[in-house]
Amino acid sequence: MPGIGVVESQRIHFNEPLHLRSGGVLPSYELAVETYGTLNAAKSNAILVCHALSGHHHLAGHYADQPNNIGWWDNIIGPGRPLDTDKFFIVGLNNPGGCHGSTGPSSINPATGKPWGADFPMVAVVDWVNAQARLADFFGIDQWAAVMGGSLGGMQALRWSITYPERVRNALVIASAPKLSAQNIAFNDVARQAILTDPDFHGGHYYEFGTRPVRGLRLARMLGHITYLSNDQMGEKFGRELRNNAFSFDFDVEFEVESYLRYQGDKFAGYFDANTYLLMTKALDYFDPARLDDGDLVRTMARTHTDTNFLVASFTTDWRFSPARSREIVAALLANGRKVSYAEIDLNYGHDSFLMEDAHYHGLVGAFLGNIKL
Amino acid sequence: MPGIGVVESQRIHFNEPLHLRSGGVLPSYELAVETYGTLNAAKSNAILVCHALSGHHHLAGHYADQPNNIGWWDNIIGPGRPLDTDKFFIVGLNNPGGCHGSTGPSSINPATGKPWGADFPMVAVVDWVNAQARLADFFGIDQWAAVMGGSLGGMQALRWSITYPERVRNALVIASAPKLSAQNIAFNDVARQAILTDPDFHGGHYYEFGTRPVRGLRLARMLGHITYLSNDQMGEKFGRELRNNAFSFDFDVEFEVESYLRYQGDKFAGYFDANTYLLMTKALDYFDPARLDDGDLVRTMARTHTDTNFLVASFTTDWRFSPARSREIVAALLANGRKVSYAEIDLNYGHDSFLMEDAHYHGLVGAFLGNIKL
Repeated sequence: MPGIGVVESQRIHFNEPLHLRSGGVLPSYELAVETYGTLNAAKSNAILVCHALSGHHHLAGHYADQPNNIGWWDNIIGPGRPLDTDKFFIVGLNNPGGCHGSTGPSSINPATGKPWGADFPMVAVVDWVNAQARLADFFGIDQWAAVMGGSLGGMQALRWSITYPERVRNALVIASAPKLSAQNIAFNDVARQAILTDPDFHGGHYYEFGTRPVRGLRLARMLGHITYLSNDQMGEKFGRELRNNAFSFDFDVEFEVESYLRYQGDKFAGYFDANTYLLMTKALDYFDPARLDDGDLVRTMARTHTDTNFLVASFTTDWRFSPARSREIVAALLANGRKVSYAEIDLNYGHDSFLMEDAHYHGLVGAFLGNIKL
Repeated sequence: MPGIGVVESQRIHFNEPLHLRSGGVLPSYELAVETYGTLNAAKSNAILVCHALSGHHHLAGHYADQPNNIGWWDNIIGPGRPLDTDKFFIVGLNNPGGCHGSTGPSSINPATGKPWGADFPMVAVVDWVNAQARLADFFGIDQWAAVMGGSLGGMQALRWSITYPERVRNALVIASAPKLSAQNIAFNDVARQAILTDPDFHGGHYYEFGTRPVRGLRLARMLGHITYLSNDQMGEKFGRELRNNAFSFDFDVEFEVESYLRYQGDKFAGYFDANTYLLMTKALDYFDPARLDDGDLVRTMARTHTDTNFLVASFTTDWRFSPARSREIVAALLANGRKVSYAEIDLNYGHDSFLMEDAHYHGLVGAFLGNIKL
């Protein structure tokens, strides 16, 4: 099945200040946005896709002048695909604090005329949801047919169902968790410390020094990648294969897995903004909507709408956000009598499974979305 | 039960060159050594305890002038303890390449008159075993009553049973593995990259620059600690507890787990040598004795002595070297009809469990060693 083909992105300016959970304020902001398909007259066919740590608004297709720049979730979006653009109007955005065109740390701070850098206020998942609600208003969408995402994106879908229950007909929460574990936070903190202690970080104002904390960002990404993959998959993919069939007895690449990780780290460090990485990992750490209700997730899930349908999906080999974490969400929803489908999908790609093309997984998502009446 | 009390260490000089697996040579070398108990006339009561990544020769007791400097495995060694100093003569050493008194990267390279630094040759587990064999010769010990260790120390015990089968009556291989997984190597490589890319590393010759790659070493240790602890234990110990009971919305310590990790990282970076850290992690990565036999561990275990008794122990919550890895060793020994006891011990401390005082665990080790006829 052919994909969506050539797409375009747009930037939408919002003049109204965005008050953030941290107490900070964005006096005005821009969002980089892409849409696919056509919004129907009733505006009842819109799906919001929320991105994870390193994602952005370019979900699917490619730009006319960049044929190889394929959207990060292209395999699930397009005519006849689970997020069927013949039926739905799909919206992707880069969240505030991002580094792909939306207002973020590398944007100019109107108060100083210089890049925000470390002065960019801390953003939380609920802030993104608020910004996304304004984006819905911009399109005239009162209620999303669905809000969905994987990992940190799934947390946004969950937050939508809590904060704007009447505006979400369906929520798809994939490879996610109701809050991070101590181990999750620990991995994030090591990644942050790698960036924060890089001499090229300059307290977050590296833009002004003509440098970038490439070393720290590279380490952060290498570490991240270990946690995105399953132990088994790493074993099958790389094993103990040697790059040159023999030990070199030095600190260059010896094992194939080292080659892979360093390549991933270098690639990422070449384009991603370190301040955005810091903000995204903190948003992950902070996410814990049950704090609204003294830590009682069941009470928090009571805030969702009785009419909202949930699809919660997890992957058997995901040790970053294991199935047990998804089951916490499911149990809290069921305790409130909410309509929940839950799938524990047997895929070997660890946390990254949510990005993979798999007939069973995509069949589930397609069937769930196929049930939506417009 | 009181411990061993005041102990002393010694340095033993070896003039004979040590030819290393990497092709390098140590023209001469010193070993830092501690012993506890008394070697009997038949020299049949000696136990060698091999250290892991960051360990050393100071296993038990304390120095007269350092009452708080307790040996790292004090809880298992002493009169009436599992490694009973009333019965056994216990030997601990710092391996070559170490940074606790044995010849290592911070020692003077006789060829240059300057610290070895990055020119220190790569060392492998088998090199340590060879150095330990010479140490046995020094004491006149033809055959160890037992060789034991946890983690990387367990790999040395296993290597002893393969390389010097007639010199090992009992081998205790605890929380270990026959070789690292791709994920293990990946974690090690991120740690190494943190050190190697620290601007203060200076290609391993930082001693001459009056600096130390403290940032990289700190990150390496923080990351290591995550993998030493179990996910559950981290959750129970730290959960999502906040340092100041509220979000601070900055990059200082917010969660208790961050406080713990940064403290551990700072402490370690204050005393450990980065070049040694690099060498130890590479020795881990290289360890794969089945390479002797085209990867067939069963054939490799056939090299062990029919009279050697093995105790293989693993811990249920150890995800760094999981019980499955120990079972690989056990299966290969059993396939050769070797005498193996295997214990899968239910302790909540992850990989670090092997260092913990636990009645069941210590009872097992004590009973195994208690069976030794002198």
